[in-house]
Amino acid sequence: MRATELYAPTLREVPAEAEVVSHQLLLRAGYIRRTATGVYTYLPLGMRVLKKIEQIVREEMDRQGGQEIMMPIIQPAELWQESGRWDVYGPELFRLKDRHERDFALGPTHEEIITALVRGEVNSYKQMPILLYQIQNKYRDERRPRFGLLRGREFIMKDLYSFDRDADGLEVSYRKMHVAYTRVFKRCGLRFRPVEADSGAIGGSDTHEFMVLADSGEAIILYCENPVCGYAANNEKASVPVGEITPDETLYPLNRAETPGCRTVEEVAQFLRISPQQIIKTILYETEREVAAALVRGDREINEIKLSNALGCLRLELAGPKTVQQVTGAAVGFAGPVGLKGCTIVADPEVMAMVNAVTGSNTNDIHCLNVNPGRDFEVNMIKDIRMVQAGEPCPHCGSKLLEAKGIEVGQIFKLGDKYSKVLGATYLDEGGKSLPIIMGCYGIGVSRTMAAAIEQNHDQNGIIWPVAIAPFQVVVIPVSAKDETQVALAEELYHRLLEAGVETVIDDRPERAGVKFKDADLIGYPLRITIGAKAVSENRVEIRPRKTGEVTLTATRDLEKTVLKMLAEL
Amino acid sequence: MRATELYAPTLREVPAEAEVVSHQLLLRAGYIRRTATGVYTYLPLGMRVLKKIEQIVREEMDRQGGQEIMMPIIQPAELWQESGRWDVYGPELFRLKDRHERDFALGPTHEEIITALVRGEVNSYKQMPILLYQIQNKYRDERRPRFGLLRGREFIMKDLYSFDRDADGLEVSYRKMHVAYTRVFKRCGLRFRPVEADSGAIGGSDTHEFMVLADSGEAIILYCENPVCGYAANNEKASVPVGEITPDETLYPLNRAETPGCRTVEEVAQFLRISPQQIIKTILYETEREVAAALVRGDREINEIKLSNALGCLRLELAGPKTVQQVTGAAVGFAGPVGLKGCTIVADPEVMAMVNAVTGSNTNDIHCLNVNPGRDFEVNMIKDIRMVQAGEPCPHCGSKLLEAKGIEVGQIFKLGDKYSKVLGATYLDEGGKSLPIIMGCYGIGVSRTMAAAIEQNHDQNGIIWPVAIAPFQVVVIPVSAKDETQVALAEELYHRLLEAGVETVIDDRPERAGVKFKDADLIGYPLRITIGAKAVSENRVEIRPRKTGEVTLTATRDLEKTVLKMLAEL
Repeated sequence: MRATELYAPTLREVPAEAEVVSHQLLLRAGYIRRTATGVYTYLPLGMRVLKKIEQIVREEMDRQGGQEIMMPIIQPAELWQESGRWDVYGPELFRLKDRHERDFALGPTHEEIITALVRGEVNSYKQMPILLYQIQNKYRDERRPRFGLLRGREFIMKDLYSFDRDADGLEVSYRKMHVAYTRVFKRCGLRFRPVEADSGAIGGSDTHEFMVLADSGEAIILYCENPVCGYAANNEKASVPVGEITPDETLYPLNRAETPGCRTVEEVAQFLRISPQQIIKTILYETEREVAAALVRGDREINEIKLSNALGCLRLELAGPKTVQQVTGAAVGFAGPVGLKGCTIVADPEVMAMVNAVTGSNTNDIHCLNVNPGRDFEVNMIKDIRMVQAGEPCPHCGSKLLEAKGIEVGQIFKLGDKYSKVLGATYLDEGGKSLPIIMGCYGIGVSRTMAAAIEQNHDQNGIIWPVAIAPFQVVVIPVSAKDETQVALAEELYHRLLEAGVETVIDDRPERAGVKFKDADLIGYPLRITIGAKAVSENRVEIRPRKTGEVTLTATRDLEKTVLKMLAEL
Repeated sequence: MRATELYAPTLREVPAEAEVVSHQLLLRAGYIRRTATGVYTYLPLGMRVLKKIEQIVREEMDRQGGQEIMMPIIQPAELWQESGRWDVYGPELFRLKDRHERDFALGPTHEEIITALVRGEVNSYKQMPILLYQIQNKYRDERRPRFGLLRGREFIMKDLYSFDRDADGLEVSYRKMHVAYTRVFKRCGLRFRPVEADSGAIGGSDTHEFMVLADSGEAIILYCENPVCGYAANNEKASVPVGEITPDETLYPLNRAETPGCRTVEEVAQFLRISPQQIIKTILYETEREVAAALVRGDREINEIKLSNALGCLRLELAGPKTVQQVTGAAVGFAGPVGLKGCTIVADPEVMAMVNAVTGSNTNDIHCLNVNPGRDFEVNMIKDIRMVQAGEPCPHCGSKLLEAKGIEVGQIFKLGDKYSKVLGATYLDEGGKSLPIIMGCYGIGVSRTMAAAIEQNHDQNGIIWPVAIAPFQVVVIPVSAKDETQVALAEELYHRLLEAGVETVIDDRPERAGVKFKDADLIGYPLRITIGAKAVSENRVEIRPRKTGEVTLTATRDLEKTVLKMLAEL
């Protein structure tokens, strides 16, 4: 491809709309353009990257026996009503009406459609397992779309659905996908980690997320420092055992102290000269059904996902000052479990092991001292509801947990019979018994992977593509566009590389070399080949990998061989 | 691929929902399933055909310098308001609102989006020509979706847009696309014809449609019997010169005759014992602005597309009885141009050459005789407004025109500055003068081509795929699923064919041979290889092309060579 013909308009300025580096670089290097908030056009360079990722995904799905299909983007509301999700899904679902006033949704996911498809055709255990997938635009009307391709309203997903007769079959399909996903992200040249994740309050059981590691990632991963152990989970899911209980500590009598204006754990700890670990933090939440008080140790954070799961609720929000006053009789900051009525009390196991703790007293400006769970208050539920932190022991092997940041690019999920039951997708087993089909669903964010790859692989000059997903592998740059000998040699080498099967761009624009070098770095071609005076006089050209920046000189006659070798080793 | 693993559920019955043969066969053979009216899921077989067509399209677009991009499916209303199409487009445009009540459309076409994209980046004549394309779902909320993939509400299109500095540049881009389209449909193995088509009342000039020839086609094509001439147009566009005017015929005095109850041309001709060619047919229409009377010779049909273009109107409907009564003073069937007031009179040139003609008199049950245009009535406009019929002379060479039926699968269109002007997409020429970019747009119905291929290539047993777009090339069928030797040989040959790069299915289902043969014909594999007793005993297998049904015996050792040769020749 000739740079003069490539539609890849680059920008000198960082666009104001772009908050994260992948968004900035995709705009600046001419990979994408914004059409509406959270809605993008992929320009030729962006399209080439997408198609490379898609092809890797396709090959790995096919390798595991996946069959590609394509379901509609516009989905009739009837199926969503049948599954019950039409009313539950909320404003993230794009909805529309056709000319006959029939309701449709733009698919954020296709469980309903595919379950309805399969229920009409699969009726015997002999027809399973089935793995069907598609690669397609998906829609989610985000409240706050941002970060470019990391959180768009229109995005490209691969979604695969597995259909098995039982949990054992599902386990096989699930593992196939675990392998496929691992291969996909490895082939894309990314550093990533599969982590245990939360499967939500309703339905499903096992689930793993695949995280591309990047400092800019919003997801926090906790993983075991011991690589042999391999434990890794996101911080919504990570769970560690309760530490040892100090066995014989004396329980002192319950007492009260004035703590004027001390509302936060930090304020109370400082005022009473105690450690936050001695405080029981009490936070009130409202769900669609009730008010709940969540108790964790003062140095811990509440994990709202775990708390939601414990309460089995769809909606969970911090209780407002009015509710806090109503339930506790005090202002925000003075709630405590002693004598607390009219709400469900959920305590983290760590809290139950505390001795002579400090809590709010449900009276303004007063805290309780020497509070002892069991003796001084009862709880409705003891559940792990806290965030695990780096440094805590691994739940599998006891080694230390480390923390990393990641971008979720894939998730595999055991659905079980959640959709097949409600939508009536059943099969007959050998004995003629009708059973629900056991399903799994497996997603990869294709456009998101493109952005995550950049978050992980860039420097101040631009993108550093892994070779496998680079839009082109090599750029050939004649240093002087006016030197005919240089240009002729560049053209010759360009054609030789094309013939050798190397995806090459020749930068034939009448620009200064400096401009071309800047654009080459910005766009992120894995190899840059410079044709200058030396190349002409000495028959040697400079090859510079974008990743290392270390220039190699190679004889022009060996160029193809050297380039192919370097690309293979990058 | 093994038939036992292929998700391709076939149906024995013709589905009631399917009116046309492609729809019936796509459903029966397991290529597609209906998800909602006019909205389909493509199963693995259908997906394979689609992807083959897409790949051919992609290669031919790339060959002409096209660059693939992907624009959003959800399009912000602002751009449609800017172009003026938001209000004009009508109920065929799927519209929706996001959570902030902003209007969006599901793209039926992308002129607005791409013009807005390019206007931001292209500002010099040096940057053009540019050819950008995408292959993507498109949406049209048809009043009456039907015929399966031939007229769906969600369908797959390739749309390419060209950007040039002037009409000469556009001509080059247009011809490139004409070549590309010809190559695409040829490579797909289809019999087709590019025809001149109508470019509509508003904007644009040249346009060609690419028609797949099929008896079930809704479009009528008129083409010259002389292949050297090559003239072909759809019947909306076809136009022939006016025949010779009889020069010296005597004009008789205008007269009137009673024609009780004679309202149609046929009734009047029969009653007055004249030929329909002697009658001037007068039809009243209403547009958004006026009432118009259209005059054609009695044996001709009015071409409403041509009439719309002549009147420059957006809406054209037959006038109702009330309007006819009001304007002519008579009932429907007795309108005529003599003394007609209060409406625009448009006459076909043929009418102006008529002598002593018969027309309605604007009085019930009376017709005028010896009517002579010019002498007895004036017209506001003389324009070709009639349908051309088979048998008329070719406008290019005078040979006879023949008629064929076709399915439109592609259209190429010169847009000129229609969108660039209104959306402000301009460039600077060498002299620094700002000019509108000159555009063209070029569409191929990818999913429609799949259906059209079947309309053209099928028999009572099923589909007869052209090799290039068949989902698989070969099916291998062991006659007896219980005969281990046959099965082993079939497996061996299946693997040998796969290794030779032949896309092969082995029908390893535990079914009778008859069932497998029926399904093979239904699905439409180009070659069927049967492994029976003879194959085992004599080392010869039967190869049967789906197209001819003529069985060839070939030595098993030569199988790959024979198969590849036959596939190449099909």
